[in-house]
Amino acid sequence: MNNKAIAVVGGTGKLGAAISRRLAKAGHNVTIGSRSAESARSVAAELGYGIAGMTNSEAASAGDIVIVTVPFAAQEATLAEIAPHARGKIVVDTTVPLMPPKVMSVQLPAEGSAAARAKRLLGDDVTMVSAFHNVAAGKLAADEDIAGDVLVFGDDKPARSAVVELVNATGLRGVHGGALANSAAAEAMTSVLIFINKVYAAEGAGLQITGLLTEPAA
Amino acid sequence: MNNKAIAVVGGTGKLGAAISRRLAKAGHNVTIGSRSAESARSVAAELGYGIAGMTNSEAASAGDIVIVTVPFAAQEATLAEIAPHARGKIVVDTTVPLMPPKVMSVQLPAEGSAAARAKRLLGDDVTMVSAFHNVAAGKLAADEDIAGDVLVFGDDKPARSAVVELVNATGLRGVHGGALANSAAAEAMTSVLIFINKVYAAEGAGLQITGLLTEPAA
Repeated sequence: MNNKAIAVVGGTGKLGAAISRRLAKAGHNVTIGSRSAESARSVAAELGYGIAGMTNSEAASAGDIVIVTVPFAAQEATLAEIAPHARGKIVVDTTVPLMPPKVMSVQLPAEGSAAARAKRLLGDDVTMVSAFHNVAAGKLAADEDIAGDVLVFGDDKPARSAVVELVNATGLRGVHGGALANSAAAEAMTSVLIFINKVYAAEGAGLQITGLLTEPAA
Repeated sequence: MNNKAIAVVGGTGKLGAAISRRLAKAGHNVTIGSRSAESARSVAAELGYGIAGMTNSEAASAGDIVIVTVPFAAQEATLAEIAPHARGKIVVDTTVPLMPPKVMSVQLPAEGSAAARAKRLLGDDVTMVSAFHNVAAGKLAADEDIAGDVLVFGDDKPARSAVVELVNATGLRGVHGGALANSAAAEAMTSVLIFINKVYAAEGAGLQITGLLTEPAA
């Protein structure tokens, strides 16, 4: 898996930048995309590790795996922008359907999940996977160990496995979560974790799966 | 909270029996309900700790807090049965919208969650809370320590707090998860955990919330 070309669309945001940095640090070839090539280059230079910066479309063209890290409100436009450049690739949607100001309330989209919405928008031209819904970007941006698992969803098992490996490369633990439709569980859980952060004054509450006895069957 | 009268409707099932036993062992006054009073009495006698057995309606009448532990397919009929006897009480719905044979796929009901469905069915006559979605009944039935949290959802905070205390009495950790609508997250996560159990050959994978720094604010 090392030296795969990874594009992080919306990579100037907190989550995208943190994922980019950890993947590049682990040896992956990472390109950050943004609506503005200039701000992408500027963030890429700050992050170091050889990360490149360009527009979202250019980044999507450059990547073998395209990770999309934009807010829910920008998901539709961003996917439309990268669609022609993502054909035949694995697209990892990280969108959580948060609808400000009620971000502590679960509000899943009509499709059942943001991942299913992404799948509807990009169609069968890409292999859709979703992940990184419950990670506190602030913790991921630092070098600290994170006690939290990343559930990975997708209907295509090889693609899902590739993304589990990518997650592992960031220092988190990737866990197969099943079909793309199951993404609803992790997406909804984000609102619950935001609520928990408020009520328990926690900093970046996370999710851990207990009781895993073995590696997944091949 | 001790010595509250707790009714467990559908208490002859695996989850209901396990919750009943742990609550009774902790000093609560527990009544198990079933469609058949006879089987309720028989399971109650097996469980011990002074647990009583009767019909679901009788149990609902006897309880201050009514915990409903039935499969999704039986939710509607069971709630209709206990409705006249649950008025003014806290009802704890534990229903997970599993639709056999596809129990590893998230399939939330039209209302958004089984808890919202329960709320629609029972209306404002009861104070609805939901919990216990991600617990492996087999582990709960034994006396072993369980490394897993129980998220508790509800729009009424005092009722939610009462149920968090009940969960704590079972030896698990109750965690406030926010509004009743947020129940979708834990309900959906059950299908993910069933998938994980299969893929990772785990026995009763569970969910743990990491990063809780303090007790919830009062």
